[in-house]
Amino acid sequence: MIFEIDTTDRSYYYSSVKRDLRAHQKIVDRALSIAHEIGLEGLTLGVLASALNRSKSGLFAHFRSKEELQLEVLREVTSRFTKIVIVPALAQPRGEPRVRTLFDGYLEWIRGRDRKSGCMLMALAEEFDDRPGPVRDLLVEKMAHWQETIVRVVQTAIEEKQFRENVDPQQFAYEVMGIGMAFHHSNKLLKDPQAKHLARASFEQLIARSRSSHRDAIRRKSSRKAA
Amino acid sequence: MIFEIDTTDRSYYYSSVKRDLRAHQKIVDRALSIAHEIGLEGLTLGVLASALNRSKSGLFAHFRSKEELQLEVLREVTSRFTKIVIVPALAQPRGEPRVRTLFDGYLEWIRGRDRKSGCMLMALAEEFDDRPGPVRDLLVEKMAHWQETIVRVVQTAIEEKQFRENVDPQQFAYEVMGIGMAFHHSNKLLKDPQAKHLARASFEQLIARSRSSHRDAIRRKSSRKAA
Repeated sequence: MIFEIDTTDRSYYYSSVKRDLRAHQKIVDRALSIAHEIGLEGLTLGVLASALNRSKSGLFAHFRSKEELQLEVLREVTSRFTKIVIVPALAQPRGEPRVRTLFDGYLEWIRGRDRKSGCMLMALAEEFDDRPGPVRDLLVEKMAHWQETIVRVVQTAIEEKQFRENVDPQQFAYEVMGIGMAFHHSNKLLKDPQAKHLARASFEQLIARSRSSHRDAIRRKSSRKAA
Repeated sequence: MIFEIDTTDRSYYYSSVKRDLRAHQKIVDRALSIAHEIGLEGLTLGVLASALNRSKSGLFAHFRSKEELQLEVLREVTSRFTKIVIVPALAQPRGEPRVRTLFDGYLEWIRGRDRKSGCMLMALAEEFDDRPGPVRDLLVEKMAHWQETIVRVVQTAIEEKQFRENVDPQQFAYEVMGIGMAFHHSNKLLKDPQAKHLARASFEQLIARSRSSHRDAIRRKSSRKAA
């Protein structure tokens, strides 16, 4: 029959893969929403199946275990983080503009352009900090990678001589993490209307004391003293 | 009978009250341990009864509802916080010594002299930030009170002229919270051996730029400029 689909045709094959990927993505998105509500530990294949009105065995084609499902949700959250926070920063010129865009993206992420994922990364750190296993391992890897990204971006500002050469990028990264966490706490739990202002002021202070001009001012001061 | 206990005797009454309080305290301590394991939301009268090997109805004499039980566990955690973090600081002279003792106590609390409670306050902030109700309300009240305590202690350092008069105590408190949260994250999740060093260095930087001598240095610099 002329309208019979030729399943050996390449375009049929690709469109079918695309359809499968889309279906899979929809399931992961739904799993992420559930994990946001009840925590990742509560997300089982059974819970997901009943939320999707599907059979548990149907889900086995997507995830062979609860753990695999949890890992995939975590990967989804961190890939959204990369898209919202890291990619726009790397599109900026090296140095301070890149540091600033990274921080802006981080606040944006926490405050929630993508609310579910934003809160989840903080919640996951609490949920899994004392639960050994592959989920915790992947979370630690991703969080360490995030800190390493801040370190590398701060290094570009030192290389560009915008930041003093004795700025400690690890310390800078640690303080950025702290500002973000305090912002999450003030904004979400305390609903402090000053939360964003406080976060910005802390960050501007951190930038100001990292700038080369700050060192130059100190150097000028001491050379005047010596004179 | 001469050895019959006179239950109208005052000393009998007080020792009986004391015994009741001790028994109640034991139950609260156990409830706190369970909440530490499974989260406060999972702590029901049924769960607690079976952990204590008691009937649920026996627990009604202590807590009339799950919510009352949760509130009492939260009160227990914050009273331990007051004992470990706030009381020793208030015993110090006003000003920088008090600010330092407050910070030392906060790190000690997070790192866990009393491990269960230390982690729990951070975990509770995550667990209840989007669960409206009396538990969240009490948590917000206690957390806001903690921030207010930092503010007041920083004010004593300004009054003693150890800190510059234009130090913003709210901003200082916000940064202390951030240092503590980043410490919890680095120490517990990432198990970074540098965690304590990074927290200390951030705090010393915060103290250094708050000190009056810092302002004096800037003032001297600008008067030299003017000359």
